[in-house]
Amino acid sequence: MKTRDRILKNSLLLFNQDGEANVSTVDIANEVDISPGNLYYHFRGKEVIIPELFASFEEEMRIVLEGPFEKPFTVEDNWVYLYVIFEEIFDFRFFYRNLNDLLGRFPDLARRFREIVARKNRAIVALTENLQRQGMVTLSDPQKESLALHITMVLTYWLNFATVMEADDDGPAVIHRGVYQILLQFAPYMGEREDDFVELISLFYQQTDAA
Amino acid sequence: MKTRDRILKNSLLLFNQDGEANVSTVDIANEVDISPGNLYYHFRGKEVIIPELFASFEEEMRIVLEGPFEKPFTVEDNWVYLYVIFEEIFDFRFFYRNLNDLLGRFPDLARRFREIVARKNRAIVALTENLQRQGMVTLSDPQKESLALHITMVLTYWLNFATVMEADDDGPAVIHRGVYQILLQFAPYMGEREDDFVELISLFYQQTDAA
Repeated sequence: MKTRDRILKNSLLLFNQDGEANVSTVDIANEVDISPGNLYYHFRGKEVIIPELFASFEEEMRIVLEGPFEKPFTVEDNWVYLYVIFEEIFDFRFFYRNLNDLLGRFPDLARRFREIVARKNRAIVALTENLQRQGMVTLSDPQKESLALHITMVLTYWLNFATVMEADDDGPAVIHRGVYQILLQFAPYMGEREDDFVELISLFYQQTDAA
Repeated sequence: MKTRDRILKNSLLLFNQDGEANVSTVDIANEVDISPGNLYYHFRGKEVIIPELFASFEEEMRIVLEGPFEKPFTVEDNWVYLYVIFEEIFDFRFFYRNLNDLLGRFPDLARRFREIVARKNRAIVALTENLQRQGMVTLSDPQKESLALHITMVLTYWLNFATVMEADDDGPAVIHRGVYQILLQFAPYMGEREDDFVELISLFYQQTDAA
């Protein structure tokens, strides 16, 4: 692995673990086991490392959020899909932990972050329309819009909320609970299928919880 | 106004405006127009000012979240009630902007913040039960629980989300949109009253928006 890549990898690790504000370039150099001068040769400080990490996150999210929405999605497909989105967010969670501060410091990233959120929103609309085409949910356009905005918010803040509430950083369990919370939002639009659906996703949730 | 109170007031102002991480005790002393030594005499640094501000927030929220839920609440009552909760959060928004970092630094505040969130959750459950008693919504206990958790999340993160999405810090407009988003969440549980309700809150929203 190249030094440059090791620096990025370890920066991400430390930022996620301790919060970006609490990590210095000296900490990063120590973690990579190189001199601060060598680090400086590759990156002239955190202000260069952060946009580089953001670009990776952006690329990952772009790929994930394209999603194949043409074929009918089963509930299990949706579960996996939402899980993967959360997983990407979890991998770069330091952005989300300190979002307003970071976006204030990097106006260019703020613009690009808003684009990612807009993509999340479109992906949720597509997922909802997929369920609609299968006759699984019935909702009006304003309801669809409101539901998508809502789920986009949950996708953005769930991991923060869970950490605040439980001081628990365990990725998979927290992510599965987030997926369960999101899928529950579709239940009121399912008419008489609602109870079966809630039972099904509760079952999924219990299985993942036990795993 | 006592110097001590002026320090607290101006600290809150600067923290909200620039983010707590970007404000030093020297900035605060300048804003209050006293010497750093005088500031130090009252507060030995931000680590003492922050818990003091948190205590004020905690007290305000305790009062607001008690709420009179015995008599039937109209939709307008609910609007005003949710508005007031958001307003308190807006007044102390620097906590929310940097929540995970601040709670990591002050474990005692983390515990107390979780208690505030639990109170928010109980207030939303009480509000929902009030609507239930009036026959305005029909939902099972698990639905009620899930809806309350969801709305608690919106109450916690809406102002952050709106700022991220619009780089707009205008309190009242953002708060009214948050209230509208929250009340919309009750619509799917209203049966045939749903359309009238959505029309009513859309009307409220347009009026507040124009005001």
